[in-house]
Amino acid sequence: MNPPSHIIGKSLKRVDARGKTTGETKFLTDLNLDNMLHAAPVYSQIPYGQLLGIDISKAESDPDYIAFFSARDIPGENQVGVILADQPLIASETVRYIGDSVGILIAKTDEAAQRLAKLVEVYVKPFTPVLSIDESRDATENFIHASNLACEHQVKRGDPEAAFSLADHIIEARFETPFQEHYYLEPQACIAQRTSAGGIFIIGSIQCPFYVQKAVARALALPFSKIKIEQAPTGGAFGGKEDIPSETCTRAALAAFILKRPVKMVYGRIVDVQLTSKRHPFQMHYKVGVSSAGKLLAAEIQLEENAGAYATLSSVVSYRSAMQAMGPYVIDNISVKSKSYYTNLPPTGAFRGFGSPQAAFGHERMMDIIAATLKMDPVEFRLHNILKLDTKTLTGHHLKVSVGAEETLRTAVEASGWNSRSESTDPRWKTGYGVALIHYGNCLGAAGWFMDGSGVKIKIHRDGSIAVAFGLIEMGQGALTVVNQMTAEALGVEPSRITVLPTDTEQVPDSGPAVASRNVIMTGNAIRDAASKLLPVLKEAAAELLQCDLKEIKIERGLVTNSRNAGSLGFTELANYLYLSNRPMDVLGWWHVPELEYDAATGIGEAYFTYSYATHIAKVKVDTLTGLVKVAKIWASHDVGRALNPAGLEAQIEGGTVQGIGWALTENFKLDLGRVLTDNLTTYLLPTAMDVGEIESIIVEDPEPEGPWGAKGIGEPAIIPTAAAIANAVSHALGKPINRIPIIPEQILNKIGG
Amino acid sequence: MNPPSHIIGKSLKRVDARGKTTGETKFLTDLNLDNMLHAAPVYSQIPYGQLLGIDISKAESDPDYIAFFSARDIPGENQVGVILADQPLIASETVRYIGDSVGILIAKTDEAAQRLAKLVEVYVKPFTPVLSIDESRDATENFIHASNLACEHQVKRGDPEAAFSLADHIIEARFETPFQEHYYLEPQACIAQRTSAGGIFIIGSIQCPFYVQKAVARALALPFSKIKIEQAPTGGAFGGKEDIPSETCTRAALAAFILKRPVKMVYGRIVDVQLTSKRHPFQMHYKVGVSSAGKLLAAEIQLEENAGAYATLSSVVSYRSAMQAMGPYVIDNISVKSKSYYTNLPPTGAFRGFGSPQAAFGHERMMDIIAATLKMDPVEFRLHNILKLDTKTLTGHHLKVSVGAEETLRTAVEASGWNSRSESTDPRWKTGYGVALIHYGNCLGAAGWFMDGSGVKIKIHRDGSIAVAFGLIEMGQGALTVVNQMTAEALGVEPSRITVLPTDTEQVPDSGPAVASRNVIMTGNAIRDAASKLLPVLKEAAAELLQCDLKEIKIERGLVTNSRNAGSLGFTELANYLYLSNRPMDVLGWWHVPELEYDAATGIGEAYFTYSYATHIAKVKVDTLTGLVKVAKIWASHDVGRALNPAGLEAQIEGGTVQGIGWALTENFKLDLGRVLTDNLTTYLLPTAMDVGEIESIIVEDPEPEGPWGAKGIGEPAIIPTAAAIANAVSHALGKPINRIPIIPEQILNKIGG
Repeated sequence: MNPPSHIIGKSLKRVDARGKTTGETKFLTDLNLDNMLHAAPVYSQIPYGQLLGIDISKAESDPDYIAFFSARDIPGENQVGVILADQPLIASETVRYIGDSVGILIAKTDEAAQRLAKLVEVYVKPFTPVLSIDESRDATENFIHASNLACEHQVKRGDPEAAFSLADHIIEARFETPFQEHYYLEPQACIAQRTSAGGIFIIGSIQCPFYVQKAVARALALPFSKIKIEQAPTGGAFGGKEDIPSETCTRAALAAFILKRPVKMVYGRIVDVQLTSKRHPFQMHYKVGVSSAGKLLAAEIQLEENAGAYATLSSVVSYRSAMQAMGPYVIDNISVKSKSYYTNLPPTGAFRGFGSPQAAFGHERMMDIIAATLKMDPVEFRLHNILKLDTKTLTGHHLKVSVGAEETLRTAVEASGWNSRSESTDPRWKTGYGVALIHYGNCLGAAGWFMDGSGVKIKIHRDGSIAVAFGLIEMGQGALTVVNQMTAEALGVEPSRITVLPTDTEQVPDSGPAVASRNVIMTGNAIRDAASKLLPVLKEAAAELLQCDLKEIKIERGLVTNSRNAGSLGFTELANYLYLSNRPMDVLGWWHVPELEYDAATGIGEAYFTYSYATHIAKVKVDTLTGLVKVAKIWASHDVGRALNPAGLEAQIEGGTVQGIGWALTENFKLDLGRVLTDNLTTYLLPTAMDVGEIESIIVEDPEPEGPWGAKGIGEPAIIPTAAAIANAVSHALGKPINRIPIIPEQILNKIGG
Repeated sequence: MNPPSHIIGKSLKRVDARGKTTGETKFLTDLNLDNMLHAAPVYSQIPYGQLLGIDISKAESDPDYIAFFSARDIPGENQVGVILADQPLIASETVRYIGDSVGILIAKTDEAAQRLAKLVEVYVKPFTPVLSIDESRDATENFIHASNLACEHQVKRGDPEAAFSLADHIIEARFETPFQEHYYLEPQACIAQRTSAGGIFIIGSIQCPFYVQKAVARALALPFSKIKIEQAPTGGAFGGKEDIPSETCTRAALAAFILKRPVKMVYGRIVDVQLTSKRHPFQMHYKVGVSSAGKLLAAEIQLEENAGAYATLSSVVSYRSAMQAMGPYVIDNISVKSKSYYTNLPPTGAFRGFGSPQAAFGHERMMDIIAATLKMDPVEFRLHNILKLDTKTLTGHHLKVSVGAEETLRTAVEASGWNSRSESTDPRWKTGYGVALIHYGNCLGAAGWFMDGSGVKIKIHRDGSIAVAFGLIEMGQGALTVVNQMTAEALGVEPSRITVLPTDTEQVPDSGPAVASRNVIMTGNAIRDAASKLLPVLKEAAAELLQCDLKEIKIERGLVTNSRNAGSLGFTELANYLYLSNRPMDVLGWWHVPELEYDAATGIGEAYFTYSYATHIAKVKVDTLTGLVKVAKIWASHDVGRALNPAGLEAQIEGGTVQGIGWALTENFKLDLGRVLTDNLTTYLLPTAMDVGEIESIIVEDPEPEGPWGAKGIGEPAIIPTAAAIANAVSHALGKPINRIPIIPEQILNKIGG
């Protein structure tokens, strides 16, 4: 047994807290370069049509006007699709949503760029826009791309038809979930510069620097080696800076490359909301067969996703929602079809959970509906079917380690007093309790295995200070702090020695995207790999100094000791000796997820290498007079494998839960013929501290052997069950099924009235 | 035998030529940051004295004034000595030369900083300054530091006393060499910024980024891990940017750290010449015993160096001049004492050759004087004593490989027609020929072994483009080009795939200083180390694709072939497969020089791991009417081990030779009581194209097994023999010994008159 760590499992304070609270941290908007120009997008005001022409005459007569660039100025490929090649960097023939960029206007000031962009006349011959999933699916002509189906994934396992025939009950229901706007505090922002060597250097508020590098290489026909992307401190992302910076940065880079001057582009809020990606709205149809005893026998599930004008990351959303469509339960006969349809609306893309919250809304509402049919307690019904060790997921993945689903349910039930929950007797305020369980496949999964590797570079300086470069990013989630902690633990030194560097594409190999709750697992394992190379060198040097065998050396808390003769030295002294003995102390670490057995045609196999599990229990109060739903409390129990930094974990759980509450209740995203109506905080209501009630985080540790120190991902699991738990609680309070979110007062009042 | 390379030995065009000729390359002065302030040094106008006080009242009332920082503002150690701790970052008690900085003035513009710095009153109680080596050596009180001896090195081998008693002739002479100003085109320049994380980021015209990092850590009491130093494109250095940027950058960093705004400091030419380091003036006394047959039997050599006010790199100069004091000849009984003395003059420090041109002036003039005494031809006499395979250097280093001394002499003699050289019959213009031989210890030698390692990082991108980071720098010598070539050769790809990145301290381990002609050897070997790790991975992947054994894979000119079934693929395809198969393609390479057997007490042993050799033969014409010396031609033959890029080598040889001509003839550095009088190009005469005559480069290749592809250093050897060859030629022309440079017309006329 290892002794308990003084680092892992401890709530180290956030290393970026000081800079962010004092204002010393410079966000992109704080950064200006000499001789810099400013850019603003010029975009279509028509949701769908043929681009006939662009007239810049009103803009170009302005003394602050510098240039306008359109598709014809792109030296490389006019293509920015992250997965599918369906999206021009700048639209040249067809515009597909209000916000589709047809050019970029460059001016001397930001104010002028925005003003002059509005003076550019964009002539479009309008087509009839496709505004819903149904319209898109049912269209027989006038397709938005070659087809209106952006992508699809499926699972086909067992024999659902036969299994349905044996079922005591077959229950069907439809569910709907809406758009969600990321509403990161800091909008899209970047500065692109041409380098002396004729390359491009971009600094920006970016979630996936390696994606941006690829996008610039493609559009500007430059080698990757001449493109450097650095992440500026980033004020929130939530997926919204996964794909979009590939567009914005590459457009700015195009201008900087041609003009040979730095070009800054920062979206204003209204532009940001109109132009950038959202969470996919889902329409879901569930048909599930169960035995009277409460055993899930068969399921047939259709998931339909509104992809908006371009696919961007729809394929990932479609894949993940299919793989998790029936949740953390044993079900051996299942058919899932998940399809993303193009519409003439803003593109939907990456958003915390990647389709998981939507699928969770489907399967967890379904579980409650079935339990009600069977007249079973929702928890009891779930326990009949829950994933355990030595069971198989819906894709047939045989689980052999780290299955904490039941433990999250047990702890949440206990903490919430589920079994002694009481109904309200208040005639106006109805109380309800709802439970929701999820499993979440960590990292990119079988469909993205080829890019599911990440790196670090650890540099020990002669003064014993240590710099760590990693390939993923800090976007508010606490990555810098946990990377610091993991490095300190791996090397046996104090966290104060460690500086985690800003991420750029030069320091480490392409580490894939900072998504899918990957950071702790990928970076942590890469750190362990680097440490496995460093420690023998450190110990060899220490053994020289302490005149003993290297096996007798221990390095802990920055103290190097020799178990034989009790000699010791400080880590600083050791580092200086390493320098003086001419040992290079830069080491690269790398980790990629284990190979997965998976068949894409059937969707059967190891969809992901491991899963996080969670249970949320929501207690709500519904005001039957106004229709308002108040969240009284959420008990959020998460199996994270191992809690590396409990305070950081709780912050993630609370943040995710709040974002789930917003999506469930207050964030009512509205469009009118493709134009976003809710483009500011007056109309798009993020939950405030007054709206979220109490959140109690419960941490379950069922270690994952492949995770660093047993850890699994938490960034996304935190949001996934929340909305389903709330909808189950409201359904329970009203005694009527709530199968659609957001649960705005109108829906409640209609239900009560109906 | 390997097939001849299509890269090594070929004159690849300079990769930085386009940027530097079009102006796209941005030097530091071209760079401005938002919110940036400007700094100017405030320095003593008195050569030696006690600092009584500083009055900034006249400056601080100016609206452009921002701040003034003195020694009391330094949070860490007020010390910037590179080797000895003898130099305050900012003088606080004693000022030791005109130029000793007592503070740094910060203003809104560069113009204001310079103007206001002059308004600061610096009160100094003057002491009697020490202005020469003699005054310094002979002083008994009023020492500039604890002693006036800055440092010393010696060689004591064999029994000189006994050997002198056996000599047929004992010949003595004194020699003097002057200051030399680097006169890089671009003056000292940097911008320091405080980072978001509370660290420091400096970009500057810098020769040794790792030195600057250390200096900032020391003065600002920051961990190395929070300090990043990046080299801007650098317009010349010649050693003058080895030590000085540690002062200038750290002062700018101090201001930036306190003010939390970027601070730029660019020295004007006059400030640069007054404040920064020069080549050490030497006084030398040689006493040599020879047999009548022309065999060197014994030598006793005193080298005395004017170190100026602070030691900076005097120790390296003192060491190297001692180790090479008798040149590339066999001499078994020798005593060398090399001593550096402080004076109240600008510090002398690193300058191309590090004392070698001075020592070469001594030993090569001495060889001609002895030859004249023996009435032997100077070449013949040298051939009697020249270093060959299986002989020992003056420090007793047994040479077993790569000793091209004789071949450089033979080729230079042949090319110059030495044996048929004719005297001029013109009564006014006297013609003379002079020869000079040298050996030059590559890299840092035994005294600096502990820091004689360098690294690279090679990154293969998925598009087959390759980025190389290295720890040394481009300062005009062609490093980027030869690093590109060596990487291409090592990996078997086309040079066009490769981008060599700007140097910064984060990319690679501390790689030591970019001095001592280290780049090709250190970086080349580090590249080979990286390639030895990369090639097996590349070949393994290629074998998978081409379905063969990895031993059958060959990678050449960017084409990957399989010797068995003649299958092939492009390197781009292979790189993309590496990416898709999740192999990290960043690799670190490292090399340090072999361990050296050397005894510092006696100076006996392997002073350096290998040596470059050279012969320069100069043909001069002396105008006996005006005293002007014209160089007609110089034949410069260099044993470089292996010529990696012949055009680049020739450019180095020509550049070094021209700098040697300037030192020998035109660059007459003058001081008056510590103030530099020759502070611009009107008074300090750099040789122009009209002054340098013809230069014929001859390349001798005697491969060094430890060198990359057999190569040895060339940057410094190029300048070392030139002045001695010219002085020998002028002595030959006049029939009178010229033992002092620069050989200005006054000296010639005095000689002729005398």
